[in-house]
Amino acid sequence: MIVDVAGAAAALQAADDILILTHRRPDGDTAGCAGALCRGLQQIGKRAYILENPEITRRYAPLIVPYYPPEDFVPAYVVSTDIAEEKLFPDTAEPYKGKVDLVIDHHGSNDGFGKKNLIRPDAGGCAEVLYDVLTALGVKFTADIAECIYIGVSTDTGCFKFSNTTAHSHAVAAACLTAGIDGGEINRVLFETKSRPRFEMERIVFDTMEFHENGAIAVAVLWRRDIDHAGADMDDLDSIASLTRQIEGVQIGITLTEKPDGTVRVSVRTTKEMDAAAICKKVGGGGHVRAAGASFTCGMAEAKAAMLKAAEEQFHAAK
Amino acid sequence: MIVDVAGAAAALQAADDILILTHRRPDGDTAGCAGALCRGLQQIGKRAYILENPEITRRYAPLIVPYYPPEDFVPAYVVSTDIAEEKLFPDTAEPYKGKVDLVIDHHGSNDGFGKKNLIRPDAGGCAEVLYDVLTALGVKFTADIAECIYIGVSTDTGCFKFSNTTAHSHAVAAACLTAGIDGGEINRVLFETKSRPRFEMERIVFDTMEFHENGAIAVAVLWRRDIDHAGADMDDLDSIASLTRQIEGVQIGITLTEKPDGTVRVSVRTTKEMDAAAICKKVGGGGHVRAAGASFTCGMAEAKAAMLKAAEEQFHAAK
Repeated sequence: MIVDVAGAAAALQAADDILILTHRRPDGDTAGCAGALCRGLQQIGKRAYILENPEITRRYAPLIVPYYPPEDFVPAYVVSTDIAEEKLFPDTAEPYKGKVDLVIDHHGSNDGFGKKNLIRPDAGGCAEVLYDVLTALGVKFTADIAECIYIGVSTDTGCFKFSNTTAHSHAVAAACLTAGIDGGEINRVLFETKSRPRFEMERIVFDTMEFHENGAIAVAVLWRRDIDHAGADMDDLDSIASLTRQIEGVQIGITLTEKPDGTVRVSVRTTKEMDAAAICKKVGGGGHVRAAGASFTCGMAEAKAAMLKAAEEQFHAAK
Repeated sequence: MIVDVAGAAAALQAADDILILTHRRPDGDTAGCAGALCRGLQQIGKRAYILENPEITRRYAPLIVPYYPPEDFVPAYVVSTDIAEEKLFPDTAEPYKGKVDLVIDHHGSNDGFGKKNLIRPDAGGCAEVLYDVLTALGVKFTADIAECIYIGVSTDTGCFKFSNTTAHSHAVAAACLTAGIDGGEINRVLFETKSRPRFEMERIVFDTMEFHENGAIAVAVLWRRDIDHAGADMDDLDSIASLTRQIEGVQIGITLTEKPDGTVRVSVRTTKEMDAAAICKKVGGGGHVRAAGASFTCGMAEAKAAMLKAAEEQFHAAK
């Protein structure tokens, strides 16, 4: 059943003992949505908690970890935030497959796995939808809640830079700043600060980058020994593949990362002229038209040669 | 005389044959302000033009160049946008010193060199002030004007990332997107696209970066031969000094650039723990507390040693 903001708010108003789910590899949006919803529901007198997410990183832990449920909590109503499909549930959410009462999401691919579903693909961050729901619930927009919402919107829109940013995204951000958050400091931590391992990863991407087809194809390589030497974790490798495509003239950016077992993961990013999914399909992978990937069971040299061949074929076919 | 938005709008409404000035080394804000004001004034039937700025770069030229005055234009009313003081006039504006009718600015240091002065230091971008003035003038907010305003606000706030971003900045951005601009594409060009020369400059900054005092001081070096080899211009070197400070743990970031004559220009960027101006003062330079600079007549090795010594002194004094 599809519901609108008022319908979702009414459902939450009628419920209690609410458990909130976040997705695998939690990002700022799922953590921000869950954090804001939980704080808002508690503010209006509900018992509400956020299910443990074992993959939460240090950056977003403060949004959800303080709201993990006590041992004796028995959920009576389950809400998922920013989760496009049940396959993206963390292991801890296994018991709730097929049992979600309310889905709140912004992925167009979401087929509505909840009993009720509020899905708004026009929202840059799912946190924008949460903002509307909390407003409909009459929740006071405190700085604490505003910080969760702001982190959700800003991380999913690349700090209001990506094309998914709308007037509504900016209106929500304005409300967050009015609520008294320190946007400048939040952004400095989220967008302006590179950890030393992240810096080393970027240095290696820059150093290994090779250009082909007169600068239209860029290929960068991250070896496992360098990743381990730098002590880089998932946070440090996040979105590193986008660096290749940022260079003027590059239409196909390829980043090859050696996995701990010596096999290779490839990320492809393209500009509007090229189809990343089509390139990855040639080597058994897939994904979206601008961002796709593939896995190789062979070593780096072979994977790199195969990817370059696939990219060059696509490049010449598109010309 | 200090005026508010209504006062500035009334003055413009009463004027005609209006000439608009931009500042030296024009950035997105001065160009965006001038571009928006000129388009708005023409829309409501005024003769209005923008004074030639010989330093305009390819990136911002489209905002102002089409509005350069015809040869027979005789200005009767002069407006400056985003200019903090007359010293920042381009050479072409020399005849207008002491003759500015209306100053529109957002620099707190502006002492009001116009006959009338609208100065709003709370505005992240001066373009936010222009938005309010155009609204008061009853100008229809077309996509063309919105693009100028958006570029002004977004470039001066680091795409809504810096601490000068306010709820009003976001409200203005929301109005720009509602007017139909393609924010995602504008931002891709302004913030996500590195020219090949810029990429080479960043690669060199990353490669030459040395860390001292357990990572608290970072030093990067740009040699002239590398700058020339990459074909880097002013746009490509813009804000490159901030890269050092983005690395976690760095409190003092030093970037040394070799000038064409072999002398050295130094840029220092600091986090809140350290005083950049104090460091640069030790070697005869100066600036702001977080961003300062100095010039050396000696070569790179000597300049680097002197800067490192000054930074280490300051670092130990501050501990």
